[in-house]
Amino acid sequence: MTATPAGRGLFLSFEGIDGSGKSTQARLLAETLRASGHEVVLTREPGGSPGAEEIRRLVLQGDPDRWSAETELLLFTAARRDHMERTIRPALSAGKVVICDRFADSTRMYQGLSRGDLRGIVDCLHTLMIGLEPDLTLLIDMDPDTGLTRARGRQGDEERFEDFGPDLQKKMRAGFLALAQEYRARFRVIDGNRPVDAVAADVRMTALRMLA
Amino acid sequence: MTATPAGRGLFLSFEGIDGSGKSTQARLLAETLRASGHEVVLTREPGGSPGAEEIRRLVLQGDPDRWSAETELLLFTAARRDHMERTIRPALSAGKVVICDRFADSTRMYQGLSRGDLRGIVDCLHTLMIGLEPDLTLLIDMDPDTGLTRARGRQGDEERFEDFGPDLQKKMRAGFLALAQEYRARFRVIDGNRPVDAVAADVRMTALRMLA
Repeated sequence: MTATPAGRGLFLSFEGIDGSGKSTQARLLAETLRASGHEVVLTREPGGSPGAEEIRRLVLQGDPDRWSAETELLLFTAARRDHMERTIRPALSAGKVVICDRFADSTRMYQGLSRGDLRGIVDCLHTLMIGLEPDLTLLIDMDPDTGLTRARGRQGDEERFEDFGPDLQKKMRAGFLALAQEYRARFRVIDGNRPVDAVAADVRMTALRMLA
Repeated sequence: MTATPAGRGLFLSFEGIDGSGKSTQARLLAETLRASGHEVVLTREPGGSPGAEEIRRLVLQGDPDRWSAETELLLFTAARRDHMERTIRPALSAGKVVICDRFADSTRMYQGLSRGDLRGIVDCLHTLMIGLEPDLTLLIDMDPDTGLTRARGRQGDEERFEDFGPDLQKKMRAGFLALAQEYRARFRVIDGNRPVDAVAADVRMTALRMLA
């Protein structure tokens, strides 16, 4: 394991619009890396630790308008802090590979999109309370219409995140691509408009380069 | 009503160690002001709005160690943001008197005491996400041993806050007195080591001066 600070593992995140296949790709990569002998922790946000999952439920259940954008941001930051302390940092300290389905970039994108004026607050909160970025972020880039069709084919507790129309999906895609530019040192954009296996092969190659 | 920014009411907070009598004094002042024709909202922290009460339960229930100081701080800030947006600001905008049993000074004191290095983060979070201070803070100052005896005479969901020994009560008192110095423009220290009526008379006089 190289290219990471001494004494720690590797932190990989997956980002992408709903229906982009990022969760599937995160799982496939975890399986591949485990098969080749790596210790892997596969986790997700919001959630990823018992406390963060409780906060996740508090935010996502009930009337979508019951929290303001600012309160929701504080709750998600609390969940991320717990997730980082209890799940991510201990795994990295033990030299493991952490694969996280969504991390701070999702907050930057979603909150920035619904309330552009919040981006400064998002960044301040992240610097103050989190201060951790992935070593590598895999953006599964996907045609917004295809993503929407896929996401609508599922129903579940993600509903609040996925109840978006085509225009919003387009903006979210653009938002992620802008973040990939802004943080180009750690972002890799993977074309998700292909069969799962082809996407997985790209993901694997990109991740293995970090682990070589 | 004078001495407050145009178009808003008056924001009063009560602070003090556990068992100092601040909740009783907050209630008595609310009754007095209502009797003299003021519209009063009596509220408390943590809590004070439906969302904030839910966050309060999430923080206070279960194992006291299940949240780190940082995560707890984020959760309390989320609760305060909700309380401010849903309860305090609307009441102030309507010209009412808001009386709050504990506000940000309690966070400054408690978090600063258990983890002195957190005070900077407490202040940053407050500036970033709250930015509201009371017009007047009444510190009910109380002999730590008397306060402890009184607090121990009660049992309830406050237990986590009150399960402190005499040394910690002394430090908390000193912490509040230090805050009264730091923010002396808005703090008034009331001697709480007297019969309830005598303390209430002082509180009333101090508050009425703000409303004159």
